[in-house]
Amino acid sequence: MPNSTLEERCVNTIRTLSIDAVQAAESGHPGMPMGMADATFVLWDKFLKHDPKQPHWYDRDRFVLSAGHGSMLLYSLLHLTGYDLSLDQLKNFRQWGSKTPGHPEYGHTPGVETTTGPLGQGFATGVGMAMAEAHMAAKFNTQRFTITDHYTYGIVSDGDLMEGISHEAASLAGHLKLGKIIYLYDSNRISIDGSTDLAFSEDVVGRFKSYGWHVMEIDGHNRKSVEEAIREAQNETGKPSLIVCKTHIGFGSPNKQDSAASHGSPLGEDEVRLTKENLGWESDEKFYIPDEVFNYFRKAVKKGGEKHQNWRETLNEFTNNKAKKAAAFKAQIAGELPDNLEQYLPQFEADSKGMATRAASGKVLNKIAASIPSLIGGSADLTGSNKTWIDDEGIFDAKNYAGTNIHFGVREHAMGAALNGMALHKGVIPYGGTFLIFSDYCRPAIRIAALSNISSIYVFTHDSIGLGEDGPTHQPIEHLASFRAMPNVLVLRPADANETAWAWKAALEYGDGPALLVLTRQSLPIIDRNKQNSASLTGKGAYIIADSDKDTPDAILIATGSEVQLTLDARKALKDDNIDARVVSMPSWELFARQSQSYRDKILLPDVKARVSVEAGATFGWERWIGSAGTAIGINRFGASAPYEEIYEQFGITVDRIINETKLLVS
Amino acid sequence: MPNSTLEERCVNTIRTLSIDAVQAAESGHPGMPMGMADATFVLWDKFLKHDPKQPHWYDRDRFVLSAGHGSMLLYSLLHLTGYDLSLDQLKNFRQWGSKTPGHPEYGHTPGVETTTGPLGQGFATGVGMAMAEAHMAAKFNTQRFTITDHYTYGIVSDGDLMEGISHEAASLAGHLKLGKIIYLYDSNRISIDGSTDLAFSEDVVGRFKSYGWHVMEIDGHNRKSVEEAIREAQNETGKPSLIVCKTHIGFGSPNKQDSAASHGSPLGEDEVRLTKENLGWESDEKFYIPDEVFNYFRKAVKKGGEKHQNWRETLNEFTNNKAKKAAAFKAQIAGELPDNLEQYLPQFEADSKGMATRAASGKVLNKIAASIPSLIGGSADLTGSNKTWIDDEGIFDAKNYAGTNIHFGVREHAMGAALNGMALHKGVIPYGGTFLIFSDYCRPAIRIAALSNISSIYVFTHDSIGLGEDGPTHQPIEHLASFRAMPNVLVLRPADANETAWAWKAALEYGDGPALLVLTRQSLPIIDRNKQNSASLTGKGAYIIADSDKDTPDAILIATGSEVQLTLDARKALKDDNIDARVVSMPSWELFARQSQSYRDKILLPDVKARVSVEAGATFGWERWIGSAGTAIGINRFGASAPYEEIYEQFGITVDRIINETKLLVS
Repeated sequence: MPNSTLEERCVNTIRTLSIDAVQAAESGHPGMPMGMADATFVLWDKFLKHDPKQPHWYDRDRFVLSAGHGSMLLYSLLHLTGYDLSLDQLKNFRQWGSKTPGHPEYGHTPGVETTTGPLGQGFATGVGMAMAEAHMAAKFNTQRFTITDHYTYGIVSDGDLMEGISHEAASLAGHLKLGKIIYLYDSNRISIDGSTDLAFSEDVVGRFKSYGWHVMEIDGHNRKSVEEAIREAQNETGKPSLIVCKTHIGFGSPNKQDSAASHGSPLGEDEVRLTKENLGWESDEKFYIPDEVFNYFRKAVKKGGEKHQNWRETLNEFTNNKAKKAAAFKAQIAGELPDNLEQYLPQFEADSKGMATRAASGKVLNKIAASIPSLIGGSADLTGSNKTWIDDEGIFDAKNYAGTNIHFGVREHAMGAALNGMALHKGVIPYGGTFLIFSDYCRPAIRIAALSNISSIYVFTHDSIGLGEDGPTHQPIEHLASFRAMPNVLVLRPADANETAWAWKAALEYGDGPALLVLTRQSLPIIDRNKQNSASLTGKGAYIIADSDKDTPDAILIATGSEVQLTLDARKALKDDNIDARVVSMPSWELFARQSQSYRDKILLPDVKARVSVEAGATFGWERWIGSAGTAIGINRFGASAPYEEIYEQFGITVDRIINETKLLVS
Repeated sequence: MPNSTLEERCVNTIRTLSIDAVQAAESGHPGMPMGMADATFVLWDKFLKHDPKQPHWYDRDRFVLSAGHGSMLLYSLLHLTGYDLSLDQLKNFRQWGSKTPGHPEYGHTPGVETTTGPLGQGFATGVGMAMAEAHMAAKFNTQRFTITDHYTYGIVSDGDLMEGISHEAASLAGHLKLGKIIYLYDSNRISIDGSTDLAFSEDVVGRFKSYGWHVMEIDGHNRKSVEEAIREAQNETGKPSLIVCKTHIGFGSPNKQDSAASHGSPLGEDEVRLTKENLGWESDEKFYIPDEVFNYFRKAVKKGGEKHQNWRETLNEFTNNKAKKAAAFKAQIAGELPDNLEQYLPQFEADSKGMATRAASGKVLNKIAASIPSLIGGSADLTGSNKTWIDDEGIFDAKNYAGTNIHFGVREHAMGAALNGMALHKGVIPYGGTFLIFSDYCRPAIRIAALSNISSIYVFTHDSIGLGEDGPTHQPIEHLASFRAMPNVLVLRPADANETAWAWKAALEYGDGPALLVLTRQSLPIIDRNKQNSASLTGKGAYIIADSDKDTPDAILIATGSEVQLTLDARKALKDDNIDARVVSMPSWELFARQSQSYRDKILLPDVKARVSVEAGATFGWERWIGSAGTAIGINRFGASAPYEEIYEQFGITVDRIINETKLLVS
């Protein structure tokens, strides 16, 4: 290959590894890696700050492959630059047990910054990463010590930009003037159905300018232009940058370049051969990496190691000079929570008038924020309703990135993905609020969090028909069931102010995925904990909140959230009728399911078949706890617009109904 | 009120009715109706073509209040212009049983074109209405007879435009050059959190121009400007129009105008009084409508009736001149399906190699399309994968609105809302396709369909780990459960090609909400219906597909979709071990739940407690059918990237596992 420069050989190595892996798997997306090999090579070779041997180095640049279907582009680069991803892993692309799944998965493959594939998620997750970067820089950098200083790079595709979440996130990033976002847009004008002319004729440049972005247009195969554009983007510090790279999908394939045929299917053995010939590739061997190319790429290890070492030294000096600030910084990036978090929780006095659990949540948040400085978050334009404001903190915006109160705007989906990005970035513990009903708008981002074990916290208020007059468009019915069915999600629906405090603790400590705090609009009595069991049992998922006097209760009544009080009232009335029932408060199915069988059997005595569940939502799934013989009181229709007491009455979520159903079961 | 013109009095009537109703309800959103009263009055008074006494007149203009929280604006106009909505209904705003719920609900209140409240939905639903209008006009209008010719007007808010769905729908509408969309944007710069400067600083004008929209900016309180702008928008036939109306939220309120305080709360009795004074309002009386104003508004009845009558006459002439075409048109707007739809379904021969149910769906669709000319739809850029293409039809686009194959682009959310709009418009039966996993992206639109009993059809392919290599980002787990928990949704997961045909029939005939066809990527054997029960029983939701020879089977095995074949194989093997099991195919929980108790007991014999369910998804909720004693085989974790046979094996969705679990239960 005498006519090829080393650079060309590097780029073609990315291409050939990608097409060989897709061919071996007989499945995958070769066209995008082929098209974006040039631009991405320039980014990784000339700009990306990373330490392949220590992929979690805090101050690395973040690289987000939003077009996750082009995973082989990323896997190729990870292997070549020296991450713990062997050539055998590339050969096992998309096979059981490999580190090279069809789409990049965070936590599964070293160097993968976030799980992508569902389009638009990476775009918006990167915005969250850049928000965290800006915040940490503003909070901890000093004139002398720059501890946080990295870019968020991304590769975004036509598909990413068609998705609504890209609008929300781009508008938010422009508003926040996140100048360290640099996205390369793979403008190849081809999507799965064919030419983007079929469905996508907007002026992307004009659109992003209207969001306040810095936009450039270049030939994505001209590596000099790519370099200049990235440099220009770095120099534009007050705006996020979009570099529109005009590219050819399937670049180099004589018969499939510029065609949807190269998008989502292997090229075929013949076309692989023809492509290698056409590229002037030097070997027939599959997964061939020229030594010179390998050695060139692997310089990233030394270069990255040195940069990392320099940073460590700066951090040491910072520590020597600003011990307290440095300690605070280190605690934040380690994600530390205070020991004995429970001592920071407020305690609420018993009160029959009570307060809404959303109000309690606001008080808890404000109390614990003082001892958890990494808390940052806000609401999708429902700050006052969600009670997500931290009083002693400022607004996070372009004038004050050190602030922690975020106005996400009416952008639930971008909020969800931004929470993911902030959590993945490290240094902050992010939370976001909206009405529970609008969880539907951010569900794809919540799923990414669940799949990636991302600890984001959602403050979902207005959790049932209890919100009243806004009516069925705003009243969740199926939402609890729909999240309980999603793996790794922690759903918490506390019964009063004190359970709310302990629910926050459970959410903060969870760690396996997103935690959803499901809270009322309406006031709930604060239960007298001298008489009932401690709210600290919230962490068990379910506990006896009022027991029968009998060894074996006549019935077990199980309720969550706002329906616990109704159930306690029903128990009292039943006792007057000589039915002695146990009441179990069950704020979290997931936490309860994690308890030992013996604990679970102690709470839900297997011999007691007379069980009634009470929850102002779909009864779907409650059979798990009440058994075939039990009765589930709930709502299997849409809600209604009226004062909430009236809806409860009309829908039969009442003390009388609980009494009657229990009597029926016991008799 | 001598200084007020009649027009001013009309506008102030809208304002005062709105603030009085919100005050009476002690709940609601007065600010938006006050701010948009001027512009909306002009639209309704000078332009809107409608017949208040016959709200379903097909050729009316559609009016979509995307900012659904401003419902009193709409209710006021509906009452004033003579719809069947009494003043008492306005007085009962947001009360139990009233026709004036917190947010407008389709089917609940005459004249409400679509359910709004969740922001952005109305914006995108209107795009669907305009698509249907363009299609029906292209298909049936002749040079002489214009039967379909109406606008889709909308009121959209800052919040609507922040939502991602507004991007998707606006980009699609611009691409499709839907010139009969005219949206008035209530640019009041206030959202719930306060000034939109907190989160929303994009250049909306530039953004919409980049989508290919015609954009104007006017003073929304200058009624002359509004009139001119709407006229200009009507003259621009090649682009959708956005009229940016600069308005004052809470217009007229001396202390709350231009403040978030007027957005979502009653003004308060004192401020109501002060506002009326400030507006120069002529009476202290609540819900006061000056006679002159009332009479002026009510002219809409006569005017609309005449227009409707003219249209009827044109339709009659059309019928006389073009009998066949007119009959076809009438059948489409009546939503007629052919009698004996079953005779149009393809029949698939038994075949152990079989075909994917998505492939079967494609064949069914192509077969029935010939007899259901109102079918129109497509895919969110997965046409080939979803098999949603109708071969004998062209593409629906600006060059050919008569086409029926829609390229929605990678815009699942806009697709969902557009399906709603098309179905609400009438004349077409819309369907849309994507992977089941991306149902999460359009979930809010599916919920609107469920709440509004909209018959949209979803072709959701790649329905489980059976999609294989694309991995966990693309493999649905919780999705079946999450939709089964949503009221009014029909979920259909057919077991083979013939069940797929009957599932399409069930979907077309459903009528109570959206129907979801949940289909495999992978091939499934076509079950031999000479040996097994007929696939026509699909409509029962569940049926015996292979029975035990005993009167009382030893066990009942229940499966859906791709797992039915595994279960049939397990039954055979069990029989060799003297366990004689019944296999129930259960393509639809919802249809089965609608059958009589006696039918259900015939299928799931109450005495047989040894029950095993098999479904490649979350087991959540299966206790409903298998009881406390049963075993649910499923997947309660996220998927994996590998060839699908391997994943099935690794996850234990196998014949051996079914055999073993059954034996355990029986023994």
